[in-house]
Amino acid sequence: MFKHAVITPFLGQTKDRFSEYNEPKTLEQKFQTLRMIEGMTGAELVYPYEVNFDNLSEVKLLLAKYDIKVACINVNVKVEPEFKSGGLTSPDKAVRERAVSFIKEAKDFAQAVGADKVQCCPLSDGYEFSFQADYTETWQRLCETFAAAGEYKPEIPLFIEFKPNEVRGRCYLDNAAKTICLIKDIGNPNIGVTLDYGHSLYGDNNPAEELALLNALDVKYYIHINDNDGKWDWDYFCGSRSLMQYIEFIYYLKKFNYQGWLTSDTSPTRWDIVKMFEANVNMTNRISARIDEIGMSNFEESLHKKEYMDIWADLQSYFMKF
Amino acid sequence: MFKHAVITPFLGQTKDRFSEYNEPKTLEQKFQTLRMIEGMTGAELVYPYEVNFDNLSEVKLLLAKYDIKVACINVNVKVEPEFKSGGLTSPDKAVRERAVSFIKEAKDFAQAVGADKVQCCPLSDGYEFSFQADYTETWQRLCETFAAAGEYKPEIPLFIEFKPNEVRGRCYLDNAAKTICLIKDIGNPNIGVTLDYGHSLYGDNNPAEELALLNALDVKYYIHINDNDGKWDWDYFCGSRSLMQYIEFIYYLKKFNYQGWLTSDTSPTRWDIVKMFEANVNMTNRISARIDEIGMSNFEESLHKKEYMDIWADLQSYFMKF
Amino acid sequence: MFKHAVITPFLGQTKDRFSEYNEPKTLEQKFQTLRMIEGMTGAELVYPYEVNFDNLSEVKLLLAKYDIKVACINVNVKVEPEFKSGGLTSPDKAVRERAVSFIKEAKDFAQAVGADKVQCCPLSDGYEFSFQADYTETWQRLCETFAAAGEYKPEIPLFIEFKPNEVRGRCYLDNAAKTICLIKDIGNPNIGVTLDYGHSLYGDNNPAEELALLNALDVKYYIHINDNDGKWDWDYFCGSRSLMQYIEFIYYLKKFNYQGWLTSDTSPTRWDIVKMFEANVNMTNRISARIDEIGMSNFEESLHKKEYMDIWADLQSYFMKF
Amino acid sequence: MFKHAVITPFLGQTKDRFSEYNEPKTLEQKFQTLRMIEGMTGAELVYPYEVNFDNLSEVKLLLAKYDIKVACINVNVKVEPEFKSGGLTSPDKAVRERAVSFIKEAKDFAQAVGADKVQCCPLSDGYEFSFQADYTETWQRLCETFAAAGEYKPEIPLFIEFKPNEVRGRCYLDNAAKTICLIKDIGNPNIGVTLDYGHSLYGDNNPAEELALLNALDVKYYIHINDNDGKWDWDYFCGSRSLMQYIEFIYYLKKFNYQGWLTSDTSPTRWDIVKMFEANVNMTNRISARIDEIGMSNFEESLHKKEYMDIWADLQSYFMKF
Repeated sequence: MFKHAVITPFLGQTKDRFSEYNEPKTLEQKFQTLRMIEGMTGAELVYPYEVNFDNLSEVKLLLAKYDIKVACINVNVKVEPEFKSGGLTSPDKAVRERAVSFIKEAKDFAQAVGADKVQCCPLSDGYEFSFQADYTETWQRLCETFAAAGEYKPEIPLFIEFKPNEVRGRCYLDNAAKTICLIKDIGNPNIGVTLDYGHSLYGDNNPAEELALLNALDVKYYIHINDNDGKWDWDYFCGSRSLMQYIEFIYYLKKFNYQGWLTSDTSPTRWDIVKMFEANVNMTNRISARIDEIGMSNFEESLHKKEYMDIWADLQSYFMKF
Repeated sequence: MFKHAVITPFLGQTKDRFSEYNEPKTLEQKFQTLRMIEGMTGAELVYPYEVNFDNLSEVKLLLAKYDIKVACINVNVKVEPEFKSGGLTSPDKAVRERAVSFIKEAKDFAQAVGADKVQCCPLSDGYEFSFQADYTETWQRLCETFAAAGEYKPEIPLFIEFKPNEVRGRCYLDNAAKTICLIKDIGNPNIGVTLDYGHSLYGDNNPAEELALLNALDVKYYIHINDNDGKWDWDYFCGSRSLMQYIEFIYYLKKFNYQGWLTSDTSPTRWDIVKMFEANVNMTNRISARIDEIGMSNFEESLHKKEYMDIWADLQSYFMKF
Repeated sequence: MFKHAVITPFLGQTKDRFSEYNEPKTLEQKFQTLRMIEGMTGAELVYPYEVNFDNLSEVKLLLAKYDIKVACINVNVKVEPEFKSGGLTSPDKAVRERAVSFIKEAKDFAQAVGADKVQCCPLSDGYEFSFQADYTETWQRLCETFAAAGEYKPEIPLFIEFKPNEVRGRCYLDNAAKTICLIKDIGNPNIGVTLDYGHSLYGDNNPAEELALLNALDVKYYIHINDNDGKWDWDYFCGSRSLMQYIEFIYYLKKFNYQGWLTSDTSPTRWDIVKMFEANVNMTNRISARIDEIGMSNFEESLHKKEYMDIWADLQSYFMKF
Repeated sequence: MFKHAVITPFLGQTKDRFSEYNEPKTLEQKFQTLRMIEGMTGAELVYPYEVNFDNLSEVKLLLAKYDIKVACINVNVKVEPEFKSGGLTSPDKAVRERAVSFIKEAKDFAQAVGADKVQCCPLSDGYEFSFQADYTETWQRLCETFAAAGEYKPEIPLFIEFKPNEVRGRCYLDNAAKTICLIKDIGNPNIGVTLDYGHSLYGDNNPAEELALLNALDVKYYIHINDNDGKWDWDYFCGSRSLMQYIEFIYYLKKFNYQGWLTSDTSPTRWDIVKMFEANVNMTNRISARIDEIGMSNFEESLHKKEYMDIWADLQSYFMKF
């Protein structure tokens, strides 16, 4: 069984370019909703807009009151006006330093609240058009700013969440391999990768294969779960659009003995909030239980069959009622 | 030279899932900004959230004061809570009727303000998952609701703007051909199509070819201009990502003697608002002027060359400085 | 239970840009292989390269000997040198007439061999670049040539198979809606559409929704089955990449009481030929049987639930072993 | 000015799944065609199917006779029956060793013929379906086989050409970053990357950005040029579909002072062979000359403007005749 957490802003009001969804909620209301989701025990909290040093004591009280663990502190470096076109890669040194300081403070906050890691998705670090960015400079800046953020309090590792695009037309760190290149170049083992299943999928990668790459190259990872149609980061619920690939992803998490959180990065725009997150938890756990029932060694045997049609026959008998 | 208009909300504050861009503006402030854009003389106004019968007299005064023509009234049927999962195709008859009444009222408003058309992009009419919608029923409802909306005040034609997705994972009316199927099935010549260049492009269609289809099948059309990377409706400025396709699009508009508005549906998130819309106007008009300079008949000759490399050599000499 | 056929060239040697797959086979060898596939009883034969008037009597003998029905005659109008850049839309009238004559002869052949339809996928009618084609002219030619082909022997209907691209960078008839526009413009009820599941899917459409559109607009259809990753016409086996969408497709075929053939358009490049086609047959039939077991009316009820998470729970219980 | 080469099989007959293009040519005929292309002076020759030790002396004679330089030896490890599902990652050790021996022999051949590098695109090393491959094992095998191939005769560097897919549904080495991960893991500075412009583009990457990454991480690179529509490896001629991105790519090649070959990997299916390759040469050289005319320092200034609309105005004045 996996430990399940949720990115808490998804429990309140969300929006897109044209509409708003669900009601705004206080942090306590979000925690109340979280506890209504069977099997959900953790939270990824957003620093500094949802939690920060001003409400630290309230956060600690609420975590205790609702018996919620902090899976991770998510540090947002995209919303401040000066971060809008990229904080970590800004041509302005002061802006870059401020972005780095956000991550350092998030580490402080994580420590204060008993969390063991922070994560950052540099969504506004990217570009849209030809000749808009100098890729040599921006890569250099990514190396410098993430190095600076990573070497602060290495006991609270920093996980970098790659994403193909949104809010920029192209984000610089768009897949696992490029993020690994960055981390290896920095050379800090306490910088890891947040593998968001959907970011991998709609970036035209296979989440299980990217996971295996992280594992092969000894890079720490932390997992976000969701699904999409391979075209956009819709943050659909798990298994809804790429079921067999999700089963394969769960299989590799088990094979690699992943003990961390599975954090739902799923957007309940038009579906019941509680039911949707419960579907993430239940489906994931049931797939895991089904694999246990079949047995990892049986699975390994299937995997090593030479004829794929024989593998498929096994998969059908393992998972399908037809 | 083409007549240029702009969808006015783009002149004020816009947002996406994670951020907000630019300052909120009153209608008058938007009109002031509009007049700062050289060559921009028209507005597409959004009913009922930007303009409506409550501010009708103010709208008329401001239009006169700033000498702005109304290119079109854009009726929004996606934001009301009951429209969130699709107003025109709602299983609830009362909701569908309310959506239709929005379009009818928009026609009334158009008439009151001296506009000659309305347009509607049914963005929330769609679905995300398998077995979420009954496609037979939803098609039937699209036929009925658009028929009802179209037969009201046919002297103010209704243009349907197709779009592949957003805000739904899939919109029902996702390209020109399907929208033509709907219109032909309804059989009302006063229902036309809004061809948004970017919607065509990121729906994996060629805007010029969709335009030619509308022309061949005698369906009225109205044009939105912008650009994108072929993957998402980024609403970039014209020519920024698909320059030669945009030149081809302008060529066909001239060939078909399009006399209507070119309405900029372009989102100035990180760029100077006035400069960005001026780029739309200037680039479009300059391409048009360049084609005039070359001459349509010379162009026709190029087009009929058997060897494409010879056509390309012509294009290079027509448009490129290398 | 559905009637299953196979496009016979897939039983012999196939190739791609770089490699060849499997051994060449005579027609009799292909028929022998076909009969080894449990549940496979029909053949779609390719005119004039696999079958033609020269081998008509042999074809008839072999069909009788192996008790194989002809699901359809597939007329190939892309391979002749003069068809390479488009036969049906060639600027050369004589070439267009020759392409039409291929279809007419295929109808003659279909009649001679006891088949009730022909189908044609105009793969080489398309373009790659801006200003390469005059879309007004090419649409006009498509109307004329398909009209001429369709009015010959209307008792043998002609099914047009749309496809987004390949062998051209863009094919003119790239989805169901555009093909419907063409057929409605021609006005011949004996021209129908071949809906190839994979062509629909990788054209960024939903096969079940395109099927419902054909049904709603009373256009005849004939079905090819396969699967892909949404990016290219890989002709994978059924259910391998888009399982829930395939289940939905089967559901709609049953709802519309489709009595025609399901013809496997699946390419066994690296998998056992017989096992791969058997997977198509078995999986399709088992899904169909599973739906019967559940009952169409139960399914309808699920479909009409307001909350999608409840629909999904039903689907999980209907089809998944977890 | 750049040095231009061509992959010689594109000068003879090519094919796709359904058709054949152009006439078969002997090596001498291909060289004769090559010399008809103005500005084309080099050849990338395919080992062992086009050149090998059996025709070595003929190859040397013809190279001298037609004054053609060998840009690179392209070693094909995908066509042999045992390589069809992946030679370098085959579960069979003997097959992997044979694939490695192909690369070693290609290095021997390169040396014999006076070429300074070999390149290999492992197109058949990949997979199609979930649970078809064990990604941990296949990554390990890629490391081992490329390490073995790379350490042989390091004075003839090996360039690995990544590609998203084709002939496999997914190739293991699908972008620059993942190939860099592999090379850094192997730790051999004499293994580099072949950056094929089109492979980068249709893998949803930006060629100029991938080039900058290779440069930043001190990985050797070799360049293939072409273009496509961002969806498939169509091997169109340069600039035909992504002109401004190609200009940006050329700009970075100049900025990084690339002195190697630009090798045309372009497929003249329906266009005049000589004219198409001449377009590659001419357009590339003219863009380069235009940049020289503008001056790299002026370009740098443009690039550092804060407002992108001002950068765009510069680009328009630099390159467009409107």
